[in-house]
Amino acid sequence: MPLFFKISLFFFFFFFVISLSLLEYNHPLESLTLFELTQVTNIVKNSYFPLNVTFHYVGLNEPNKQLVLSWLSSTHHHTKSTTPPHEAIVITRIDKKTHEIIVDLSSVSILSDKIYNGHGYPMLTLQEQTAADELPLSYPPFISSIKKRRLKLKEVACQGFPVGWYGEKKRSTNRMVKGICYYLDGTINLYMRLIEGITIIVLLDQMTIASYIDRLIVPVPKANGTDYMGSKRQRSSHESNSIKIVQPDGPSFTLDYGNTVRWGDWKFHVAYDMRAGIIISLASMFDADKREFRSVMYRGFVAYFDAGEFGFGLCAVELEPSKDCPDNAKFIDGYFISQDGTPGKMPTVICIFERYAGRYHAAPYRGCNSREKGKLIRKVRPEVSLVVRMVSTVGNYDYITDYEFKQSGTIKVMVSLLEVRGSIYTHNDQIKEEVYGTLIAENTLDVDGHENSFVKNNLKTRRAINKSSPRKSYWTVVSETAETESDAKIQLGSSRGVFEMVVVNPNKKTEVGNEIGYCLIPGGSSTSPLLSDDDYPQIRRGFTKYNVWVTPYNKFEKWAGGLYTDQSHGDDTLAIWSLRDREIKNKDIVLWYTFGVHHVPKQEEKIFQLCQH
Amino acid sequence: MPLFFKISLFFFFFFFVISLSLLEYNHPLESLTLFELTQVTNIVKNSYFPLNVTFHYVGLNEPNKQLVLSWLSSTHHHTKSTTPPHEAIVITRIDKKTHEIIVDLSSVSILSDKIYNGHGYPMLTLQEQTAADELPLSYPPFISSIKKRRLKLKEVACQGFPVGWYGEKKRSTNRMVKGICYYLDGTINLYMRLIEGITIIVLLDQMTIASYIDRLIVPVPKANGTDYMGSKRQRSSHESNSIKIVQPDGPSFTLDYGNTVRWGDWKFHVAYDMRAGIIISLASMFDADKREFRSVMYRGFVAYFDAGEFGFGLCAVELEPSKDCPDNAKFIDGYFISQDGTPGKMPTVICIFERYAGRYHAAPYRGCNSREKGKLIRKVRPEVSLVVRMVSTVGNYDYITDYEFKQSGTIKVMVSLLEVRGSIYTHNDQIKEEVYGTLIAENTLDVDGHENSFVKNNLKTRRAINKSSPRKSYWTVVSETAETESDAKIQLGSSRGVFEMVVVNPNKKTEVGNEIGYCLIPGGSSTSPLLSDDDYPQIRRGFTKYNVWVTPYNKFEKWAGGLYTDQSHGDDTLAIWSLRDREIKNKDIVLWYTFGVHHVPKQEEKIFQLCQH
Repeated sequence: MPLFFKISLFFFFFFFVISLSLLEYNHPLESLTLFELTQVTNIVKNSYFPLNVTFHYVGLNEPNKQLVLSWLSSTHHHTKSTTPPHEAIVITRIDKKTHEIIVDLSSVSILSDKIYNGHGYPMLTLQEQTAADELPLSYPPFISSIKKRRLKLKEVACQGFPVGWYGEKKRSTNRMVKGICYYLDGTINLYMRLIEGITIIVLLDQMTIASYIDRLIVPVPKANGTDYMGSKRQRSSHESNSIKIVQPDGPSFTLDYGNTVRWGDWKFHVAYDMRAGIIISLASMFDADKREFRSVMYRGFVAYFDAGEFGFGLCAVELEPSKDCPDNAKFIDGYFISQDGTPGKMPTVICIFERYAGRYHAAPYRGCNSREKGKLIRKVRPEVSLVVRMVSTVGNYDYITDYEFKQSGTIKVMVSLLEVRGSIYTHNDQIKEEVYGTLIAENTLDVDGHENSFVKNNLKTRRAINKSSPRKSYWTVVSETAETESDAKIQLGSSRGVFEMVVVNPNKKTEVGNEIGYCLIPGGSSTSPLLSDDDYPQIRRGFTKYNVWVTPYNKFEKWAGGLYTDQSHGDDTLAIWSLRDREIKNKDIVLWYTFGVHHVPKQEEKIFQLCQH
Repeated sequence: MPLFFKISLFFFFFFFVISLSLLEYNHPLESLTLFELTQVTNIVKNSYFPLNVTFHYVGLNEPNKQLVLSWLSSTHHHTKSTTPPHEAIVITRIDKKTHEIIVDLSSVSILSDKIYNGHGYPMLTLQEQTAADELPLSYPPFISSIKKRRLKLKEVACQGFPVGWYGEKKRSTNRMVKGICYYLDGTINLYMRLIEGITIIVLLDQMTIASYIDRLIVPVPKANGTDYMGSKRQRSSHESNSIKIVQPDGPSFTLDYGNTVRWGDWKFHVAYDMRAGIIISLASMFDADKREFRSVMYRGFVAYFDAGEFGFGLCAVELEPSKDCPDNAKFIDGYFISQDGTPGKMPTVICIFERYAGRYHAAPYRGCNSREKGKLIRKVRPEVSLVVRMVSTVGNYDYITDYEFKQSGTIKVMVSLLEVRGSIYTHNDQIKEEVYGTLIAENTLDVDGHENSFVKNNLKTRRAINKSSPRKSYWTVVSETAETESDAKIQLGSSRGVFEMVVVNPNKKTEVGNEIGYCLIPGGSSTSPLLSDDDYPQIRRGFTKYNVWVTPYNKFEKWAGGLYTDQSHGDDTLAIWSLRDREIKNKDIVLWYTFGVHHVPKQEEKIFQLCQH
C-alpha cells in the first residue's frame, strides 16, 4: 500500500475527531468519511480475525426514503431523533464467499452479515486487477510465447477482462478474468497492438493462472500510425492561446460541509460512490411564489454496465484544475477503500463550476419584422448553468459525466465518450460483443411530491374529414398514462409517435390546469440491442431491450444490471424485476433511461434532459 | 428610412473608395460590401426609372465551383485572370412581377434580367412586414372589432403570417399575408394573448386589406401567468455572479479582411447572407504530414424552412458582447438592403470565439486498473473549439446557430431553439400545421477532393452457426455505397440498422487502407412528418419525408424548399430534384440533413456533427 494513503489517513483522522462534536448529525445521504471508512473496515476485519477479508465495496447503506424526506422537511435537522440511521454496506470476500455486511455507524457495530449464494461476483478491486495484469509477465509459458514471437517482454502489458457468462448451467465457483496482452514498443496507445493467439485465465481469489493456451502466432500490428490521436495532435502546427474563465466576484453557488449545493433556485446534494460515481440527490427548486422548495428528483445517477465490474467511482480520475475543469471550479474529494480495507483519498474527483451556457432573451420580444419599428423589447442576460463533473476511465474509454443544472429548471445529463484505441478486432469474423457501451441512468423523480405518474404523449396523424377545408390531414397529441410497468417500456425510434415522456404529479395542477410535470428528452440517436434475446450477453443486460423503463420505487432495485455483475446470469436485473408488471400510476416511481453505444470508434456524446413540462 | 442607414452609408462609401485599389481582388465568396450593394441597387433602379423597384434579396451570385477551386489552388490569388467573376443576384418586384437580375460587379452592368413566372414569391421585406402589421390598426372595421371586444387599441399588435398553399389550382396573382393580432395589455409576451375570431388578408404589393371578417368574439386569455419565462426569472431570488472568459494572449484565430478564418489546423471562410444567415465555405484542415490543406466542406449552411419567407440572415439580431457571445469574441458585420434598395449595416451579426469545450487526454493511457502502478500516462490538455454564431428571431422563435470547429476535425452544428410564447392554439380541434420547425442543412462536402461517395454502414444481427461457440448471435457491419439518389434517402429511426453515414473519397486511402471519409452523426431524436403525403403543407416541403438526402452538386439546387418559398407549390424542392435519381457514386455530391421540430413548446437543441471517419 503506498505511503500516500497512510499519510492522508493520519491527517484526516485528527480533523474528524476535532470536528465531530460540532457536526455530529450530517446529511443522511453523505458519503462515508475517511474516519467512518476506517471504523467500518476495522470492525469487519476484527470480527473475522485471523481470516483474510478482501473489501470490494463500501458505501452508504441508503436510509429509507421516508426517513430521509421527514428529515428534510423537519425544521430542526440537527437533532438525533430526526436523523435517519447512518449505516454502511460492505461487500467483502471472506474464505471464497461473498458477504454483505451492514454496519451501524453511530454504534460502530455489525447489524447484519449475509452470505450471497446467487450468480455473480462483486466488483474487482484495483489491487487484484493490477496483480492479475502482472501475473503473465512472470509466468514461464507466457515468457516463452513472447520469445517465440520475437517480442521484448518489457514492452508487453496485459489487462484482465471480465469473462461474462455463456450459458454454463453450473454456478461458477471461481472469480476470474481473461488476460489480454498488448505490445507497447513504439506506441503509447496500449490498445493498438494486440498480441493475438494467446488465451490466459487468471483466478482472482487465488491469483494464479488456471489455464494458458498459445494457439497461434499472428504478427503484431505495426506501431506506425497507431498513435492516431496522440502524436497527430502533438504534431499540430498550432497551439491555442489559453482561455481563462474568471468570476471576479467568486462563484454564485455554495457547497456546504455535507456536500449540499445551493445555486440560484436550485438545491441538491452531491455524493461520491465507489460504484455509481456521482449521485445527485434531493434536487429541488425554489418557487418564489410559494416561498418553498419544490422537489424534482430524489436520486439520480448514470452507470455504465461495467460499473458493476470495475466501478465508475473507483475508475474516476483526479481532475486537474483549469484542464479537466475550468479555473472557476470547486472540487470534491472522494474516499474509497483498498482491497485490504485501508481507506484512500481520491483527491478532486468531482468538480462543480458555473458555465456560460449560451445566451437567451429574458423577456420575449417581437420577431423579425419589428426591428425597424424601434419597439424591439430585448433583455439579454447571459445564461449560466451549473455543471457537476466526473471523469472515469474504464478500459480504453474515458467517460466524462456532466450534470448540468439550468436556470430554466432543466437537468441535462451528458456523457461524453472518448475512446483511446483503434480496434482490438483484426478479424472481421470474430464474434462481436457489445461490451463497450451501455449506460443506464436511474432517476427517482419526485415531482412536487412522491406520488407521480408516467405519461406518454404521442403525436398522431389524423385524416381531415371536414370537407370545407382543403387540408388532407392534421396531427394531434394523444396522452396515455402508464398503468403498469409494461405500459412504460419504450423503444425509442421504433415508436416514432412518442414525442414526449413526462413524469407528472397528478395531484397538483398548474394555474392553467395542467398537471405539474418533468419530461425526459432523450438526446442522440437511440440504439437498441443487436444481439438476439436468447444470446447470453443480452440475457445479462436485458434492460437494453427498451430505452425507457418505469418501476415503482424500491430501495433494493438500484443496479439495472444487478448488484453482482461479474459473471452474472441476468436474474437480478431491471428486465426481471419489471416482469412483475407492478402498478406505477400515482405511485413513487423511478425512471430508467438506457442509452447504448455500439462501439463506434469515435468521440460521442450521449445526452438526455429532464426538463420542466 | 431611418437616418441611421444614411449615415453608415456615407461613412462606408468613403472607406471603400479609399481601400479599393489596395484590395481589388477579394475572396470570391465574400458577401457584397456596402459599396457594392449601393452600386447594384442604383444600377437596377436607374435602368427601370421611373418605375418603382422593390428589393427582396441581394446576394453574391455564387461563381462556378471549378473557378473558385482553381482560384484557391492558384499561388497568385491576386491577379485578375485567376479571380472568378464577381456578380450579384438581385430579386426584385417591378410592376407586380418578380425579376431575377444578375449584375456584374467589376463592370457594374446588368448581365441578365429574367422574369419569374412560376409558383411562389420572393422573401418578404422588413418594410412591408411592418406596414402590413400596422395596417389593421388604422382600418375602421378592425377598430370597431376591437371596441366591440372592449379592448384598448393601443395595446393591440398584429403580425402577418405567410398564407401557404392549400391546393388552389390557379396561379396566385397576389403576394399576401394573414394578419393575426394579439393583446399586450399587461404582458410583454406578444404571443400569449391571441385575439381570436378575426381574419385579415393583407395584399403586400398594394398594401391594402383585401378581406376582413370578424366571425366571433372569444375572450382574450388573461395576462396573469402568461409571462412564464420573463417575469418568473426576474422574480428569481438569486442572480449569478458574472463569468468572464479571458484570453490573456488574445484569441488564437485570425480573421482576415475577406473573412477567412484560420485557427489551429482549420481554415474556412465565413459569409453573411440575407437569406441563409451564416455560410461556411472552403473548410479545410492542414495535414502536417503532407504539408498541405485537405478539403472537408465546400459550402455549408443551415436554413429554416421559413428562411425563404423571412430570411434567416435578415432576421438576425445584433449580438451583444459578453451577453450573446463571450468576452473573447470577434464580430462580423452584415450588410443587407432595404425594400427601396438602400443598403444597411447589421452590426455584429456573427461572432466567432474560442471556447473551452471540456477536456481530453491527448495521450491514450491505461485504464482504471493502472492507477496504483504509478505508470499512468496522462497528458491532459484543455480542449478548445472555435464557434461561429448567429442568432435569428423568426416569429416567436429564437434560433441560435453555432458552428463548432473541433481540433479533432469534427464540425458540430447546433441550433438551439428558444420559443418565447405559450400556445396560439386554444382549441384542440384546430388543425395543426408544422409551420414552426423544419431546419435543413446543406453540406457540400469535398472530402479530400470533389469526387466523393456516400456510404451507409449498417449493423446487422447474425445468427451464430458455429456450434463450438455457446454464442447465439453476433453483429457485423455491412457497408453499402449509394449508387443513385434513391439509395441515399434515409429515414432515421425507422431504419435502426443505419448507424453511420459516411462521405468518402473512394480515390484516396488511409495508411491502413480505409477510404478517407467524413461521417454524419445526427443528434437529438429524429422527427418525421406527421402530415400525410398528399396534404398541401407536406407537398410544399416534401424533403422532410427523409432525414438525409444526397444529390449531385448543382449550383442552382440550393434551397431545399425552393428559391421562392412564399405561396410555393413544392415544385422546386429537393424532393422533386431527387426524383431524377441521378448517379451519386464517385461524384461531386451534396449531403442534406433535415432536422424537424414538432412544435414542442420548450427549449430544444438540434445537433448534428460532421466528423472524421
